[in-house]
Amino acid sequence: MRLTHLLAAASALAIAAPAPAQVAKTELNRIIEEGTNQSEAMVTAQYMMDMIGPRLTNSPGMRRAEEWTQQRFRDWGLTNVRKEGFEFGRGWTIERSSVRMVTPRSVQLTAIPIAWTPPTNGTLTAPVIVAPISAERHFDAWRGKLAGKIVMISLPTAGSEPDEAAFQRLTAEQIGKLDSFRQPRYDPEAADRRVKRLDFAKKLDAFLKAEGAVAYATQSYRDAKLVHGEGYLFARGDTPALPGIQLAAEDYRRLARIAKVGPAPTLEITSDVRFDDSDVNAYNILADIRGTDPKAGYVMAGAHLDSWVAGDGAADNGAGSVMVMEAARILAKLGVRPKRTIRFALWNGEEQGLLGSLAYVERHLATRGTGPNSQTGLARFMGWSNRWPITPQPGYGELAAYFNIDNGSGKLRGVYAENNPAVVSTLREWLSPFASMGARDVVISRTGGTDHVFMQQVGVPGFQFIQDPLDYESRVHHSSADTFDHLKADDMRQGAIVLAGMLLQAANADQPLPRAVPQQPKVTDPFAYPDPDEDR
Amino acid sequence: MRLTHLLAAASALAIAAPAPAQVAKTELNRIIEEGTNQSEAMVTAQYMMDMIGPRLTNSPGMRRAEEWTQQRFRDWGLTNVRKEGFEFGRGWTIERSSVRMVTPRSVQLTAIPIAWTPPTNGTLTAPVIVAPISAERHFDAWRGKLAGKIVMISLPTAGSEPDEAAFQRLTAEQIGKLDSFRQPRYDPEAADRRVKRLDFAKKLDAFLKAEGAVAYATQSYRDAKLVHGEGYLFARGDTPALPGIQLAAEDYRRLARIAKVGPAPTLEITSDVRFDDSDVNAYNILADIRGTDPKAGYVMAGAHLDSWVAGDGAADNGAGSVMVMEAARILAKLGVRPKRTIRFALWNGEEQGLLGSLAYVERHLATRGTGPNSQTGLARFMGWSNRWPITPQPGYGELAAYFNIDNGSGKLRGVYAENNPAVVSTLREWLSPFASMGARDVVISRTGGTDHVFMQQVGVPGFQFIQDPLDYESRVHHSSADTFDHLKADDMRQGAIVLAGMLLQAANADQPLPRAVPQQPKVTDPFAYPDPDEDR
Repeated sequence: MRLTHLLAAASALAIAAPAPAQVAKTELNRIIEEGTNQSEAMVTAQYMMDMIGPRLTNSPGMRRAEEWTQQRFRDWGLTNVRKEGFEFGRGWTIERSSVRMVTPRSVQLTAIPIAWTPPTNGTLTAPVIVAPISAERHFDAWRGKLAGKIVMISLPTAGSEPDEAAFQRLTAEQIGKLDSFRQPRYDPEAADRRVKRLDFAKKLDAFLKAEGAVAYATQSYRDAKLVHGEGYLFARGDTPALPGIQLAAEDYRRLARIAKVGPAPTLEITSDVRFDDSDVNAYNILADIRGTDPKAGYVMAGAHLDSWVAGDGAADNGAGSVMVMEAARILAKLGVRPKRTIRFALWNGEEQGLLGSLAYVERHLATRGTGPNSQTGLARFMGWSNRWPITPQPGYGELAAYFNIDNGSGKLRGVYAENNPAVVSTLREWLSPFASMGARDVVISRTGGTDHVFMQQVGVPGFQFIQDPLDYESRVHHSSADTFDHLKADDMRQGAIVLAGMLLQAANADQPLPRAVPQQPKVTDPFAYPDPDEDR
Repeated sequence: MRLTHLLAAASALAIAAPAPAQVAKTELNRIIEEGTNQSEAMVTAQYMMDMIGPRLTNSPGMRRAEEWTQQRFRDWGLTNVRKEGFEFGRGWTIERSSVRMVTPRSVQLTAIPIAWTPPTNGTLTAPVIVAPISAERHFDAWRGKLAGKIVMISLPTAGSEPDEAAFQRLTAEQIGKLDSFRQPRYDPEAADRRVKRLDFAKKLDAFLKAEGAVAYATQSYRDAKLVHGEGYLFARGDTPALPGIQLAAEDYRRLARIAKVGPAPTLEITSDVRFDDSDVNAYNILADIRGTDPKAGYVMAGAHLDSWVAGDGAADNGAGSVMVMEAARILAKLGVRPKRTIRFALWNGEEQGLLGSLAYVERHLATRGTGPNSQTGLARFMGWSNRWPITPQPGYGELAAYFNIDNGSGKLRGVYAENNPAVVSTLREWLSPFASMGARDVVISRTGGTDHVFMQQVGVPGFQFIQDPLDYESRVHHSSADTFDHLKADDMRQGAIVLAGMLLQAANADQPLPRAVPQQPKVTDPFAYPDPDEDR
């Protein structure tokens, strides 16, 4: 029997088996074949990271990515490809930048303009002053001393002595430690204090401006010349008055030492950054593979497409976006006909407070109050606390399972059950075909800080994957080294395969996944007093 | 008894003890007090690294360092402070540089001009071509294809996956492995082949120029945005025609990928580098503490003061230079009166082939032929092989021991006996007061690549210290992260103390250290054929 006949016979056998769950099992091997031998994951990744590059929310790069990803979904045959907007703020991009020390000697420094700070409009030359300011109570010490200065607001830290390898894969023992149920903790006053501290950036800018400072600089939080440049004053009307730069730790510390022992060094800063206010909305990208049962609801995978700008947004989170896109391509290519619709989401504004996924939750799943003061931006993330009642939207019951990817390009090693013990056995069963590829474990730990958080909070079963960390924490997360070449191709392919497999099984499951109880906890420790210096 | 009386009594007792070796023992505790409580090591280091900065041989920074180090020696009361010149080549420094990708999108790249390459004279804008060329046999493949291009001559590598901690201290087990005598290996033809390959840089430059290329770029050999920029065409008349830059690995690979899949990206290079030919000599800095016995000869410590330019030359080798200077300061401050003179040397031109220490050897210790073709620069280092006869100079017998420091700022853990088993017990005895400070072991291993090498070759007892590696290999050696804040203050202080103690004991020893037999080995394997592709 020739190979083609054998394949045709196998295919015919598969078609003859009727139960959706059984169809899915057979299709898992086709997913693996398509995701390994026919993979397009790294081609997609190369275009996203190299050709489009960084994708700061509402930046020109992100606009290109919004259009290109929709086009790719359409090319691959997905349906209902669309973008859903939500109000965000200003577009911002770096065209060119340079920071030099010009006295006491010439050194080209490693630096990046802080996101959404204004341009220098040419070259700005001024002496530095080291004025560590991290809270309003520090302002008084510097009044009258900052006029005409570039203010170095970070307290210089000692250098790092990394005692672990920069590149890591998880051991079974490490994964095992994640499988331990913990008492949820809840303190709404802490949330209020976090929100309050968000105003500090604006107050600092106003203080520096009033004092006549001409720019400010921070120290990078990673050593060895990596820079990051996160900033959060992206809303219209919030743009700071002063240009801001983040300096490599080595360069910052050198300036601080020189200023300590002698005349303050002089910097020459050119920050040619550009704003674009043509559209204040940011957009989530959505695409579907339509289910056969219109009443069965949908399952969804999501990853945030937006990034910071120091690198190309590869590990954070081009990797997750590519896995989601490749899973969509694989399932579309195979022509799967799942019971439930499978939806693919590329979120926007994640780096500024999970804003894209929050907008989706509020539009399609459930709203929740935000207290007496209507909050926007990052403050909404901080303040959208568990204390307000949940108001379900019409689609609340339709989302049967959500899988999020946002931990770099490392191989998927399992799933976080996110404090939802009732799903453990089902997830483990769905993972079992991928155990030999490294994705084996289901652990109870809850994870935060990315786009499944608000779904969890309203009671939708939203999960993250356990991933090998690689050099995510040590080198690339948000940094100037977050480029395509830190992505691991085999891991990326495995991730897309496992994601596609989980989605298809979830879409064909007899029952939707058991939901966690929506989180409306009591205050955990009503007897505690807040530390008045907790931000020291 | 009051403390001052106690100290005076102790001092009187010490003075009453006559034998020089016993004086030295007592003085070791004073060295430790001066080197810990009264240390100036980090003050010296801060000025050298922050204020003077990188010290490329014959650069303006090195000129300042030559003057400043002499002044410090004089301030501390050393005698016979002087500089000894040797012919080197051109001065070169980076005033300002910028490399951007301008198509298909704008990215400020991390790059450094390669040492002694010419300036761009303004801004140079051209497309790249990836043309991996590492040997003359590769030229043909690229003829007629390079006109108007910035030629990327490195073959792009895969990204690194560091599986060891970036910061390391040696375990006793690791040090133990160094104590294993090995058969010397010698192959003069290999030396000739190395010399021949040195011409490749010139041939490549001529080829690129003849083909009409406008600049060239290499890939950094470390990941995560570190750059280095070593170059060797420093002699007058050797300056290349084309500007050259080293790009961060991430930036190089991105350009290479884009060029592979579509139109070649365009770079905009500004390399504002400056030559200074006012003095072609480089200078070693020498300073003495005069011995009481004019016939007893001298002992010496040395470290190279010159550095590359991407960082501030801190771990390589400001650290060693500072330890040598601080050891000199401590001994001078204590007013020691050793039997032998103690000489302190700050070498120049080490990074270009141990040229300063070689000049010293030839002037003061012994000359050795260099074969039919008189070689200069790095070729002399490569070709100054063991095959030529040693001609002792009048001072050959005077140098009783030489200690070199050039392994970063890590704590001294012991001494390499450098294949000289007869010195082991003496060195171990001298180290014993410092065992509790971590300097304990004497191992037989031979080390190379720094300024004791030519002394070893002519039979002078020259040694290196075993040092904790810290992040020398992983991050800072020659890199843009080689700055003061990667130096460890406690380690630097310990190094200066141990060095001062070893020097004083060597200077007061009854006998000079036993000399190794001068190395004039037979060819180890006369039956071997060279691999014609060994540089592939």
